[in-house]
Amino acid sequence: MPYRVNPYLITRSLHPENQETPIHFLRQPAIPEEYFFKRNHFFYPVPGQNSYQLQVKGKVTKSVNFHYDELQRMPSRKLKMVLECAGNKRSKFKPKVYGEQWEDGAISQGEWQGIPLNTLLAVTGVDPDVREVVFEGYDTGRRTDINEVVPFARSLPLQKALHPDTLIAYKYNGKPIPFKHGFPLRLIVPGWYGMASVKWLKTITLIDETFKGPFQTIDYVYYPDENSSLKAYPVSIINVNSIIQQPLDRSVIEQDAEHIIEGIAWTGKGDIKQVQVSFDKGKVWREAILTNTSSTAYGWTKWHINWKPPEIGEYTIQARAVDSAGRRQPEKALWNKKGYGFNAVSEINVKTE
Amino acid sequence: MPYRVNPYLITRSLHPENQETPIHFLRQPAIPEEYFFKRNHFFYPVPGQNSYQLQVKGKVTKSVNFHYDELQRMPSRKLKMVLECAGNKRSKFKPKVYGEQWEDGAISQGEWQGIPLNTLLAVTGVDPDVREVVFEGYDTGRRTDINEVVPFARSLPLQKALHPDTLIAYKYNGKPIPFKHGFPLRLIVPGWYGMASVKWLKTITLIDETFKGPFQTIDYVYYPDENSSLKAYPVSIINVNSIIQQPLDRSVIEQDAEHIIEGIAWTGKGDIKQVQVSFDKGKVWREAILTNTSSTAYGWTKWHINWKPPEIGEYTIQARAVDSAGRRQPEKALWNKKGYGFNAVSEINVKTE
Repeated sequence: MPYRVNPYLITRSLHPENQETPIHFLRQPAIPEEYFFKRNHFFYPVPGQNSYQLQVKGKVTKSVNFHYDELQRMPSRKLKMVLECAGNKRSKFKPKVYGEQWEDGAISQGEWQGIPLNTLLAVTGVDPDVREVVFEGYDTGRRTDINEVVPFARSLPLQKALHPDTLIAYKYNGKPIPFKHGFPLRLIVPGWYGMASVKWLKTITLIDETFKGPFQTIDYVYYPDENSSLKAYPVSIINVNSIIQQPLDRSVIEQDAEHIIEGIAWTGKGDIKQVQVSFDKGKVWREAILTNTSSTAYGWTKWHINWKPPEIGEYTIQARAVDSAGRRQPEKALWNKKGYGFNAVSEINVKTE
Repeated sequence: MPYRVNPYLITRSLHPENQETPIHFLRQPAIPEEYFFKRNHFFYPVPGQNSYQLQVKGKVTKSVNFHYDELQRMPSRKLKMVLECAGNKRSKFKPKVYGEQWEDGAISQGEWQGIPLNTLLAVTGVDPDVREVVFEGYDTGRRTDINEVVPFARSLPLQKALHPDTLIAYKYNGKPIPFKHGFPLRLIVPGWYGMASVKWLKTITLIDETFKGPFQTIDYVYYPDENSSLKAYPVSIINVNSIIQQPLDRSVIEQDAEHIIEGIAWTGKGDIKQVQVSFDKGKVWREAILTNTSSTAYGWTKWHINWKPPEIGEYTIQARAVDSAGRRQPEKALWNKKGYGFNAVSEINVKTE
């Protein structure tokens, strides 16, 4: 073919840069850097002179500055895993909510390599009264709601911070992490939504209290009530979810042909056990074939099912994933004011002719 | 800035290639080739050995093959003009319709240069009984609905074909037309939706009847009734229309600040006379400031208006354009089965904090 045809990132905003992965048009198990979705809270940081050092401090026996080169010589792990923005699919909520109108592509996966954080904490020591670990990035900016300049910072409960799969990553797909995705160092928290995986990691602080930063207590909180925060609770583990990659929504497809309906499914808890597909608005659910289930616990699972439209007409095709924790995509997503964690049954409409 | 941030085309399908211009993120009056939307009915053609010749035949005094080089030596015109796909904004129809789910970006503008078609018809002569002129492109493919391999072909009424602004174009923005946009020769029909501007132009045939090709009689027809073609009529002139480029829909904006609301407006009939903007769901309409009105009759008009949100809350911002033919964007677009010509009042929602 003399003429190449490529998909592109889908731009949601330029400053800060927020762009989706064209997930419907990609089939590779490791998303290349140029197709990895970008989600920023501020302009890109200008790393300072100490950016190649990672300071671990606070409630530790001994504060330590770990140098980038030194980190690379420590025993590392590689994880092929999903990173998904908590706002992925936000545009699908009804009533509509404010914020970046992500469709299906605020998700990517690839191989992250780094040192388990617990290795570093074994060096610094951990005080017995530590409750949380706070991660601060080099990215800062003014928030208009509180009219303050703040860094992007998030905390993890100590237990999650100590999990051997919580990494201080320095490579993506075998190469140094691209700057826009957190170079030189990025926290990687498998199974949690992307806000936990702090980019351009600057400091790690152990505290004996509950972290109250705005990206922990204002954003990344489920507010199921429009006008009250009584029932609010924090965003953490990725919901069980899926997408139908093919065919495309509202496409016109051939009547006298067998079609491959395909997509991916993922979860932050265990792994994907089942994907069910319906062609009649949920009366009958057929079992999709899962492939690459054995890859890694944190990666997505590919699925497909063959289908021949029984007659000319319009069809709703639905898919729902079930994970090993027994969670299943619900008919209706939990509406919440800031639009996080949308995971209703995946649905497209096609017409045959 | 060490880190460039670019918008990208928005992919609707890869084969055939259909990609939108990221129109919300572009402000230039001539869209560069890489950002020009792509709309194809088939795979890209493989031009044959005669592709540098344009054959004009049928009901003419004398058939003539015009060579590409010869055409470039003839007197030419340059037009800075809008090309808009008839399906632009299709995704906004309610009830939803099938086909590419274009949002706002199946539109671009730039400078096309070419020879008025009437110059060529003066060479060939036109039989007195000619009613239409048929334009056939090199792109062909199988249509599943009629199960036939057909070329992309469209006709114009003789009168429109003879209009001095109907061009056989060979340059876009001062350079040979990019292959994906019709190289070597493209018909350019200002003021009509894009389907009329046949790419990879192969033959021009004058006929004494009404052309019945499927892209004239099945597609590019308004069907206001779902189940009947009684009230059907062909798609031709571009409707009066506009978009709000900034702010972005569903964005959260600063309360204590003056915002510039800006966008573009265009029409296929005359030019844009007025753009009105409402911040209160249509009770009060304020007049936007128009710039570059004097550019060319076929180009879009930029507009903007300053606005300071009166209080914290949610706002619907609407814009409607009025053209010199007295047409105004309606509250509700004319629903039609194939989803052409959407031009309801432009609308976004923002929240202030």
